[in-house]
Amino acid sequence: MVERAKGAFTRKEYARRVKLTKEAMANEDIDTLFIVEHGNLVWLTGFTAESAYVEQSLVIDAFSEEPMLCVRQQDFAAAVHLSFMDRARIHGFAESLIANPDANGYDRMAELMRDAGLLRGRIGVEMGILSHNTVAQLKKSLSGADLVDATGLVTWLRLPKSDEEITVMQQASDISDAAMQAAIDRIEAGARESSAVKAALGELCIGIDGAPATQLEGINFCSTPLTGTSHIQWRDTTYQDGSQINIELGGVRHRYASGLMRTVHVGTPPDQLVKLHAAEVEGLAAALAAAKVGNTCADVANAFQDTIRRYGFEKLSRCGYAMGINWTEESASLKSDDHTVLEPGMTFHLMLGNWIDEDFGMVLSETFVVRETGGEALGKLPRELFVK
Amino acid sequence: MVERAKGAFTRKEYARRVKLTKEAMANEDIDTLFIVEHGNLVWLTGFTAESAYVEQSLVIDAFSEEPMLCVRQQDFAAAVHLSFMDRARIHGFAESLIANPDANGYDRMAELMRDAGLLRGRIGVEMGILSHNTVAQLKKSLSGADLVDATGLVTWLRLPKSDEEITVMQQASDISDAAMQAAIDRIEAGARESSAVKAALGELCIGIDGAPATQLEGINFCSTPLTGTSHIQWRDTTYQDGSQINIELGGVRHRYASGLMRTVHVGTPPDQLVKLHAAEVEGLAAALAAAKVGNTCADVANAFQDTIRRYGFEKLSRCGYAMGINWTEESASLKSDDHTVLEPGMTFHLMLGNWIDEDFGMVLSETFVVRETGGEALGKLPRELFVK
Repeated sequence: MVERAKGAFTRKEYARRVKLTKEAMANEDIDTLFIVEHGNLVWLTGFTAESAYVEQSLVIDAFSEEPMLCVRQQDFAAAVHLSFMDRARIHGFAESLIANPDANGYDRMAELMRDAGLLRGRIGVEMGILSHNTVAQLKKSLSGADLVDATGLVTWLRLPKSDEEITVMQQASDISDAAMQAAIDRIEAGARESSAVKAALGELCIGIDGAPATQLEGINFCSTPLTGTSHIQWRDTTYQDGSQINIELGGVRHRYASGLMRTVHVGTPPDQLVKLHAAEVEGLAAALAAAKVGNTCADVANAFQDTIRRYGFEKLSRCGYAMGINWTEESASLKSDDHTVLEPGMTFHLMLGNWIDEDFGMVLSETFVVRETGGEALGKLPRELFVK
Repeated sequence: MVERAKGAFTRKEYARRVKLTKEAMANEDIDTLFIVEHGNLVWLTGFTAESAYVEQSLVIDAFSEEPMLCVRQQDFAAAVHLSFMDRARIHGFAESLIANPDANGYDRMAELMRDAGLLRGRIGVEMGILSHNTVAQLKKSLSGADLVDATGLVTWLRLPKSDEEITVMQQASDISDAAMQAAIDRIEAGARESSAVKAALGELCIGIDGAPATQLEGINFCSTPLTGTSHIQWRDTTYQDGSQINIELGGVRHRYASGLMRTVHVGTPPDQLVKLHAAEVEGLAAALAAAKVGNTCADVANAFQDTIRRYGFEKLSRCGYAMGINWTEESASLKSDDHTVLEPGMTFHLMLGNWIDEDFGMVLSETFVVRETGGEALGKLPRELFVK
């Protein structure tokens, strides 16, 4: 039998998460919750394997202490290794259900639910995640129960982080700092972009003393003449005097990521960039000051926008988003029409990348925790426009 | 205005892809195709930015020469840079549609379709990809047309690769070889797993002479005592005498990946592993011999299973899958009940990872191209059980 991992979090922490979920279910008169969203599944079990490209599901009902997980047989050993639940709550579905047009892994979970007497009452399903065709099939395999849409129910519970989660995100942030510094150290006229990316990847892989990295998340190096883009990992290019590099990266611990963005310039930066960067640094400080318990997401975004507007700038995209197990969590956003009230421990990526023209933009960000007195940035790297 | 990339493929190649799509649409009496699956969108445009976490869509109609792409405004410059189409065929939707519960980027595409007179006849929609809630919303925004399920229509067209695509996959495979060798070189008693992963990542980032890598795909280092798992990137562990490491990785060029798996053992490997590995090497050769034009996917899987069965082994999971823009393409699988007939240029990951017990498994794979005389492996690395 495979050994079980020490576990990223305590059993008490998982019990907290399950309890919150059961309370939310009771509020919505949901008897049983059928969970498929990868981040929700990770949050409720600790199972972080990279296997979400096949159907895997988790069921929580009001009467069982632990959730019931169903993954493909090939991932069963990893689920036993990583999940907090008793082995008996973990099931593997037959490999013949992979790439099978007639049945899939959710059908196996439906059988398990039938055996457990759960095909009754109201079953919550994440219909905003599952495909149209899958929901149609689930309506058949879960017949006997009323299916109701429960998209977002668990996702929103993940927004305020526990102290255990914040500790892990702090470690992830320390890794981000090290990776960003490694990239900056490599940037100079004549350096290939891939060598800077490689340096960052090394840190994102090794991690830091006492907190090894556990996974890779995306990286983006968007450099001259593509500083108006935001989602290109890197290119086959060599930096030269006048090159600008917009970097986004994030360390990961136990699937929790902390995002970080900095802008680097080779040689003297142009006035427009210097002015925009200075306005953004001031705007970032204003946003963090506004990110205190009781204020709203809109207050944070407005504090930033009001500041940079005084310098003649504007940012069209949102000012950030909830961050944690997913890089962009599908809950609160830092934007002027999001009136979510900030609670202690909520974590956001204050993402101030600003793409102003097709061929001009810059980036700056911090991942922060909501505290009574304001947003506490996890990162320690100076908020400079790095000139090399 | 942002400069446009040289382009991974010729305009003639994109024209081939669009023509195939229009023919498939005509066969299904589909007037207009609404495409959202990321691989399909990449295949038809060349737009490979890492932005598929928001709604982006592509529309092909019978009368327009080029597809029409709609991405968020923040990704517009990247779309212009990377796509083959005329700028006029690329649209950015407002940033206010991001994380907006009332409307999304697909609604903007619906407006563009209305303006182009395309809200008529039969519109094919990938209902197996889009969420249940999104399809319900699309039915409203595309009213005036009949919506029909077109899941898989484009995906299957991607299965036989052109010579241009095979060239790129060969380059990706050369990168895979270099990365695997770098990892193997680092493995020894006393080495940390993350240092072997870091070495592989460096190669996966830098690429090879004349063919720089362009993206990262997943990596998995599943080592003792977790050789019965398959989807763990790496762990905080130090190799020692007796450690076994199952490695899966793949180089990427222009979004096309070539997968590669090898097993490494520190010190003398146990008999069971030696026997299974030898059977798998023979089974791999038999599978490649069976992978010739006119045979079926089932023939390839059966050739492998028949071989290892003679040595008392069996593999429960499928023997591989179509590979290309997606690591696992949702079309043909190498398994005994898949009767897809092999055509020249089809590419598969012959994935012979075999997880026999909770704490014992091994891996071996090749990415190959279907030829008249059999499967041509792209990789050049020996099919050894590497002993360090």
